[in-house]
Amino acid sequence: MAQNPARRAALIDAAIEVLAGEGARGLTFRAVDVRAGVPAGTASNYFANRDDVLHQVAGRVHHHLTPDPEVIAGLLRAPRDRALVAALLQDLLRRIEAHRSGYLALLELRLEATRRPELRTELTRTLREQLDANIAYHLGEGLPGDRDTVVVLYLAMTGLLLEHLTLPELLDAPTALVDTLVARIIPAG
Amino acid sequence: MAQNPARRAALIDAAIEVLAGEGARGLTFRAVDVRAGVPAGTASNYFANRDDVLHQVAGRVHHHLTPDPEVIAGLLRAPRDRALVAALLQDLLRRIEAHRSGYLALLELRLEATRRPELRTELTRTLREQLDANIAYHLGEGLPGDRDTVVVLYLAMTGLLLEHLTLPELLDAPTALVDTLVARIIPAG
Repeated sequence: MAQNPARRAALIDAAIEVLAGEGARGLTFRAVDVRAGVPAGTASNYFANRDDVLHQVAGRVHHHLTPDPEVIAGLLRAPRDRALVAALLQDLLRRIEAHRSGYLALLELRLEATRRPELRTELTRTLREQLDANIAYHLGEGLPGDRDTVVVLYLAMTGLLLEHLTLPELLDAPTALVDTLVARIIPAG
Repeated sequence: MAQNPARRAALIDAAIEVLAGEGARGLTFRAVDVRAGVPAGTASNYFANRDDVLHQVAGRVHHHLTPDPEVIAGLLRAPRDRALVAALLQDLLRRIEAHRSGYLALLELRLEATRRPELRTELTRTLREQLDANIAYHLGEGLPGDRDTVVVLYLAMTGLLLEHLTLPELLDAPTALVDTLVARIIPAG
C-alpha cells in the first residue's frame, strides 16, 4: 500500500470533509479522491477498503483538536477553581468551532457505528482513551471536583456541542452555556 | 394527495426505521415503500417530496415518546425533590430505549439539518417547543431548581442519550448515570 504520510493525512482530511458534508453514506473512495483533488484511484492505493478509512478518521480528528500546549500552560497559571475549568472548556469549544467538520464527522461515525460492530469497537476505544485522559488530567492538575464531576461535565459538553453544531439557534450562545454548566456542575468554593 | 391517516402514519414510521437503519442518505420513497411493505409508488402519493417526509419525522418521534399520563400521575404523588426528577428522567430513558429507532432518526435529522436550512428551521422549532414545555413543566410542578437547572439537565441527558444509543459500552449503565447527573446538577435540600 502507498505510504506517503502527508498524502495519507490529506486523504483522511478529505474523508472528514466528505463525512461532514455528505454523511456517512456519501463516503466512497471516489468522493475522497475528488475532495482531495487527487487522481481517481489514489485513495484505493492508501486504504484497504472504506472501513479502513472510517477507522482512521477519529484519530485524525483528535489530532486536529489537540490543544495548543502554550495556551494550556498559560491558562494553568491560574488558581484551580471553577473559572479555570470554564476557561479550559471555552478553549475546547473554540477548537471544535475551528474544526467544525471534524466534530460533525465524529457524529456521522457514531451513527455509522450503530450499523458496524467493528467501527463501534474502534470508536469506543478511541473515545474511552480520551475520556480517561480527561479524567486523569482533571484530577492530576488538582481541578475542583471528582471523577463523577468530569463525567457529568463531559455529558453536558457533549449535549452542548451536538446542539450548537447541528441546531445553533435552539439554545443561548454556547460560551454563556459553558459558564452556566460549569457553575451548576462544579461544587462552589 | 392521499389522505388515509393510518397509512400516512405507517409510512412515517417506516421512514423512521429507514433513517435509523440506513442513514439520511438511504431515505428514498422506494426505501420507505419497501420498509412499509406497500406497493411501489405509495409514499409518492402521500408526500410531496423527500423533504416533506423528513419534516414529519420529528413530530412523529415526539408522538411516540409522549409519556404515559398514568405513569406520570403516579410518579407525581411523590415529594418535589431530586429523587422525583431522577424518576421522571428514568422514565424518559425507558421510553427512548423502547423507541431507539426514533431517537436515532432524530440524530440523523440533526445531521441532515446541517445541510438543509429548511429542515434546520423546522427541527429547531419542534425541539424548542419541547424544551420550553419541559422548562414550564418543571417550574409549574414545583420541581427543584430553576430554568438553568432544566437547561443543564437537558444538555447532560442529550449527551447521555447520544453516548448510550451510539456507543453503549463507553460509559457506565445509563440508569446509574441518570442518578449521578441529577445528584450533581440539582442543588441539595
